[in-house]
Amino acid sequence: MNVAVLTFEGFNELDSFIAFAILNRMKPLGWNVQITCPTAAVTSMNNLTVQAQQPLEFANSADIVLLGSGIYTREIVRDTPLLSRLRLNPERQLIGAQCSGTLLLAKLGYLNDLPACTDLTTKPWVVEAGVEVLNQPLVASGNVATAGGCLASSYLAAWFIAKTAGLEAASSAIHYVAPTGEKEQSVAAMLAVIEDYL
Amino acid sequence: MNVAVLTFEGFNELDSFIAFAILNRMKPLGWNVQITCPTAAVTSMNNLTVQAQQPLEFANSADIVLLGSGIYTREIVRDTPLLSRLRLNPERQLIGAQCSGTLLLAKLGYLNDLPACTDLTTKPWVVEAGVEVLNQPLVASGNVATAGGCLASSYLAAWFIAKTAGLEAASSAIHYVAPTGEKEQSVAAMLAVIEDYL
Repeated sequence: MNVAVLTFEGFNELDSFIAFAILNRMKPLGWNVQITCPTAAVTSMNNLTVQAQQPLEFANSADIVLLGSGIYTREIVRDTPLLSRLRLNPERQLIGAQCSGTLLLAKLGYLNDLPACTDLTTKPWVVEAGVEVLNQPLVASGNVATAGGCLASSYLAAWFIAKTAGLEAASSAIHYVAPTGEKEQSVAAMLAVIEDYL
Repeated sequence: MNVAVLTFEGFNELDSFIAFAILNRMKPLGWNVQITCPTAAVTSMNNLTVQAQQPLEFANSADIVLLGSGIYTREIVRDTPLLSRLRLNPERQLIGAQCSGTLLLAKLGYLNDLPACTDLTTKPWVVEAGVEVLNQPLVASGNVATAGGCLASSYLAAWFIAKTAGLEAASSAIHYVAPTGEKEQSVAAMLAVIEDYL
């Protein structure tokens, strides 16, 4: 299972790395989870520079694509040369967007008329793009999911795992990363958020 | 407020970057939060390479020091040359440890006889170091806190903010990053975890 976590200049660390780390819980089962960037290195909204693990084109053949979030998403959705490098296909790929990634998903045309989740800062722009925004952490229809609020990243990661490897695998991943003493309640909260969308 | 997030080779992304991002919510108030490493770049347990924002010695003069976690902590606690670069002081610094960072905190001698939190994998080694391990996400005494389970990082970040800038600032930071539709309950959960330790 190839997984591309799309990570752009100005990215939000929570929105790329929480899902990246949780999805990597599936590494022993052969999952190949990669921070995927348009340039050889990207610098976050808090000035942290990371090296790309894969170029942007890796996303085109990945089984799972997560569109991360960041402070320059409104510029990225107007960057035609960059966007032309992406050829995603929700018929053969699971595609999920986190926070302002939802705006990118809408602009790429993969949301169609689906309602979506995003963060409170991005919400006006997603609404402006003609999308109904829900007041909940995650929504999905078929192979496309959106999540809102940085820490909803764990739900989006769990949704990807549950869709492909089942609820037990998703529960195991969340159980591992959950706070000590809150593991059962964290798994129950995750199941309550995602189980309507599998 | 200078904040050092100690991040070593083989680090766990959740344990460094969740707190890093949440603490950076205080950037508009002058907080300077820095990924602090023994080398110019470090590579995570999932092969993600990040550039250090500060050398290890930055921690010695920081107001807040967070000891991150990783897969090589048992080697790091035996690396005398590396550890000798750290001269922390819980009398003038807030010091917090996340997951296997608790083992490092114990070996550095800053836990004394305090009980601690850590993750389930590290627990046997922390117990072996003579420390009582609690089945809860966070515990603190004075200026020293420990947290267990990757996603408890948000509680540790909130504890640092609450100790120095108050509960309202901590609540605001958690409210911002919490999942859409779960913001009030996330703030309440955070307060329930940290309010006994301020």
